[in-house]
Amino acid sequence: MILETIQQPQDLKKLSQEELHMLVDEARTALLAKISQHGGHNGPNLGMVEMTVALHRVFNSPVDKLVFDISHQTYIHKMLTGRAQAFLDPAHYDDVSGYTNPKESEHDLFTVGHTSTSLALANGIAIARDVKAENYNVVAVIGDGSLSGGLAFEGLNNIAEQNSNIIVIVNDNDQSIADNFGGLYRNLKTLRESNGQAEDNFFKSLGFEYHYLDEGNDVDKLIALFESVKDSDHPVLLHIHTVKGKGFKFAEENREKFHAGGPFSLETGEYVRNGNVQATYNSITTDFLWNKMQQDQTVVAVNAGTPMMVFNPEQRKALGKQFIDVGIAEQQAATMTAGLAKNGAKPVWFVNATFMQRSYDQISHDLALNDLPGTILVYNASVNGMKDETHLGIFDIPFLSHIPNLVYLAPTNQEEYLAMLDWSLEQTNHPVAIRVPVGPLHSVGQADQTDYNQLYKNEVVQQGKQVAVMGIGNFFGLAKEVVAALAKENIQATLINPKFISGVDEKLLTTLTQDHQVLVTLEDGITDGGYGQTVASYLGNTAVKVQNYGLDKAFHDRYKVDELLAENGLTVENIVKNILASL
Amino acid sequence: MILETIQQPQDLKKLSQEELHMLVDEARTALLAKISQHGGHNGPNLGMVEMTVALHRVFNSPVDKLVFDISHQTYIHKMLTGRAQAFLDPAHYDDVSGYTNPKESEHDLFTVGHTSTSLALANGIAIARDVKAENYNVVAVIGDGSLSGGLAFEGLNNIAEQNSNIIVIVNDNDQSIADNFGGLYRNLKTLRESNGQAEDNFFKSLGFEYHYLDEGNDVDKLIALFESVKDSDHPVLLHIHTVKGKGFKFAEENREKFHAGGPFSLETGEYVRNGNVQATYNSITTDFLWNKMQQDQTVVAVNAGTPMMVFNPEQRKALGKQFIDVGIAEQQAATMTAGLAKNGAKPVWFVNATFMQRSYDQISHDLALNDLPGTILVYNASVNGMKDETHLGIFDIPFLSHIPNLVYLAPTNQEEYLAMLDWSLEQTNHPVAIRVPVGPLHSVGQADQTDYNQLYKNEVVQQGKQVAVMGIGNFFGLAKEVVAALAKENIQATLINPKFISGVDEKLLTTLTQDHQVLVTLEDGITDGGYGQTVASYLGNTAVKVQNYGLDKAFHDRYKVDELLAENGLTVENIVKNILASL
Repeated sequence: MILETIQQPQDLKKLSQEELHMLVDEARTALLAKISQHGGHNGPNLGMVEMTVALHRVFNSPVDKLVFDISHQTYIHKMLTGRAQAFLDPAHYDDVSGYTNPKESEHDLFTVGHTSTSLALANGIAIARDVKAENYNVVAVIGDGSLSGGLAFEGLNNIAEQNSNIIVIVNDNDQSIADNFGGLYRNLKTLRESNGQAEDNFFKSLGFEYHYLDEGNDVDKLIALFESVKDSDHPVLLHIHTVKGKGFKFAEENREKFHAGGPFSLETGEYVRNGNVQATYNSITTDFLWNKMQQDQTVVAVNAGTPMMVFNPEQRKALGKQFIDVGIAEQQAATMTAGLAKNGAKPVWFVNATFMQRSYDQISHDLALNDLPGTILVYNASVNGMKDETHLGIFDIPFLSHIPNLVYLAPTNQEEYLAMLDWSLEQTNHPVAIRVPVGPLHSVGQADQTDYNQLYKNEVVQQGKQVAVMGIGNFFGLAKEVVAALAKENIQATLINPKFISGVDEKLLTTLTQDHQVLVTLEDGITDGGYGQTVASYLGNTAVKVQNYGLDKAFHDRYKVDELLAENGLTVENIVKNILASL
Repeated sequence: MILETIQQPQDLKKLSQEELHMLVDEARTALLAKISQHGGHNGPNLGMVEMTVALHRVFNSPVDKLVFDISHQTYIHKMLTGRAQAFLDPAHYDDVSGYTNPKESEHDLFTVGHTSTSLALANGIAIARDVKAENYNVVAVIGDGSLSGGLAFEGLNNIAEQNSNIIVIVNDNDQSIADNFGGLYRNLKTLRESNGQAEDNFFKSLGFEYHYLDEGNDVDKLIALFESVKDSDHPVLLHIHTVKGKGFKFAEENREKFHAGGPFSLETGEYVRNGNVQATYNSITTDFLWNKMQQDQTVVAVNAGTPMMVFNPEQRKALGKQFIDVGIAEQQAATMTAGLAKNGAKPVWFVNATFMQRSYDQISHDLALNDLPGTILVYNASVNGMKDETHLGIFDIPFLSHIPNLVYLAPTNQEEYLAMLDWSLEQTNHPVAIRVPVGPLHSVGQADQTDYNQLYKNEVVQQGKQVAVMGIGNFFGLAKEVVAALAKENIQATLINPKFISGVDEKLLTTLTQDHQVLVTLEDGITDGGYGQTVASYLGNTAVKVQNYGLDKAFHDRYKVDELLAENGLTVENIVKNILASL
């Protein structure tokens, strides 16, 4: 097997053309074997086999610098840079992350998992090279989907002026995570259909030397193209057409389904189900919004490139103008939400917490400063959300809850969640973000009658004394367990569901100071800048002792949840112990 | 005077062509009279006189919706929408803000002061119109400089697919705040020089119907153009060439100088100086960086559209590749900083706190997750910074200090500041942000010998007992005053300069619990999510009472600093009173 002989990219230089073709086949076979058993970003990697082989044949990593956008298409790159075992031996499948990772290899320049960053990164690398008077190639590889993010445009706009070597490769597989959206994609289509010859070329308009290659899964043609631009002394853009899911017919035929996912059958193209077809927080969101949007034409759902979280392609189509996928462009999603709300629509933007970060200013300056009633559904905001260091959902409370006017809610069960969502869509006073619960659906069996117009009013679920435990959102269950454990110690603690996390219930906290000695906050996110610290501050000048629990400030990576929680003291036993010690 | 007869845009409809021309002249004269005495965004408004008159002649605000990007070019719009007095009567100059403001007029749709948002806002307004089945024009006006921000691209990309009325006006005065930068601007130049006929038209590449008008200060031609596209049933883009500073020769000749500024002489074109030519924190930054960059070719200064904060045009030119203005594109600035640092350069990015918000994810995901040694100089982060609600610098501690790996420093005097800056540029461990002091230069007269590699080690400036006062950055002086006042009450308080604001000195805080009853934090920013709350949390389970002082969470607008501080209890008298009450 040739693949096993490739310990480093230099080893590709020695291969004959025939061996290179064999390597392509072996790499794709290994890839399919792994992803069908392990899952991952399936389609993007299948389409990149030939290009990655060609890149390492022509360029000289790590002297030449390869920067992959979002980096979920780098499995073949990992195979060719000393990490083939992680694709050939199932026992080692988890040795590598799903993204480039400098801790794994000098051929991985950045830890990256958000889109549209590669061009600015490569631009910086190239300028650093120039000020150091060094000489090598800098290559950025970006997918067509990632071009919808404004940062990618900023990168193109800057690189076009660079006046030194940089090679931008647009890997155009005519697909984002879901469908592409936007005027740019009509231009890419016209360019593909004209073999790169169409008028009003977007890339040429920015000043790039432009080359088009239609056969982007032909390793020989790729090598020839790369050889022709290698060592260029100015910016060059290669527009290369590849087939997403190449070599696996089910993936080629259903590119959205096979963008990413868990294990699947190589024979039938069906993902392996875990048998669980029960309702989830996602499915009840879909049902609720679908019904609401049928009843009220002014409810408009907004999303940035991950619409399948809530609506499948048929639903999106049926919703017409009431559903908008802005592309992978969270800034646009946030600011458009402000525009929609201003003009009397009821926008609801659903977004993963980790990607929401990309629109901090738009949430603050456009939505919150203007105090417009847009609704944001924040997904995967939890230690139990995505666990790659690139995709953590544990920073949302710190970055959202200090923004004026914005009301941030943390429901603890499905009835609360839907009541909050309905209230948010119907109120017209403020922007509202809702932390969609993470984990199994939890029902309390009766409708939530809370009047959420009483901002920042917490719910005292159980009145006690001495000790108060506040369980925020997903951690309310933990708070209940703590209170139950305290009961065994003959302490009748007060159990509080804060519901609101962008401000404290000052009246309640003041009352608690009368007959409580210890107050504990339990928070599903980092402690610094979080909800608990505002409570600690509010009570700082009182005799009440406040214990804030949450995660330490770090980019935790591929962690085991139970271990991470235990490291941070988030076990019933430890919390109870600390409470008892403080009484 | 015709201008005085215009109470609302409808009044323009009745004017003869001759009267319209007179109105243009009167408006420009009034504008020049006000800005020369009052200051403001001079050049942008001078160039927009004719276009604004034409917009209100042709369109029907507020039924038709006008959205102005950044909105610093809306002085004429304010004159024509019932607010002429604020431009004609010096006693009323301050009645209006420098930006659109819905509290002032129904013709102002959004409070806005950051660039590149107008297209997404207009896109949202138009879709809301469509789902409500209403019928009117939506017009977005964006300057060429604002097109460098990625959000503007996201807006164009989305609007191109809108399939209903929307009119995008690109006001091309061939100038950003400083020079434009990027490949797009070569395209705009080619289009201007070819009267809109050049190949590879950027806007056409995105699918827009495109019209070019070279005489963008000819009110008749503007009216004809607007009439021709009014009520269009699809997206239209008007590329209109105007002259920045039009009608005031000094502004036409020096567009960077006259982008914005204080009062100036109509005769000489010189800004009125307040006589203060002493060194400032800006000037010592310039001197330090200039010298450093001469000595070390790998120091690279990065800025996003406001380079004059540190370097004048001659300096920028002389610095060559060591200075990069990425356009108004803070995301690019942050991510490029990561790329520069990764490849061994020493990047220093200087940015206003309010605009830094636009790169939260890039600071977190690109710079901090990768733990790269880039330096960020954070300007105007203070209650004494910019005081418009759109430009506040009081949120930076909450949004930066919880990001892992990032070291955020708050110097209290010039020696500390320069020592921190030098340390940051030379260390290779972490990204470092420095909160550039705001206010008069303060020297302690001796070099700062602190070893900043001892992360999070605070400086105990005066050891006392009972009470500890922590003065963060700009508020260290206030802390000194509080300690002095306490001395008069026979309390020898401990005075602490934390220096680090992204984490607490756990050892020091633990020591303080032994003989201190009250700890006070004084913070030049909002309290929620700030430094003091991390201190309150750390000491929450101890007997020490913690009092956090800072601003309440709100978008304060055009406030008087002393009043705002007093409202938030930030006076020596009040702080001392509260300390005494807690002992």
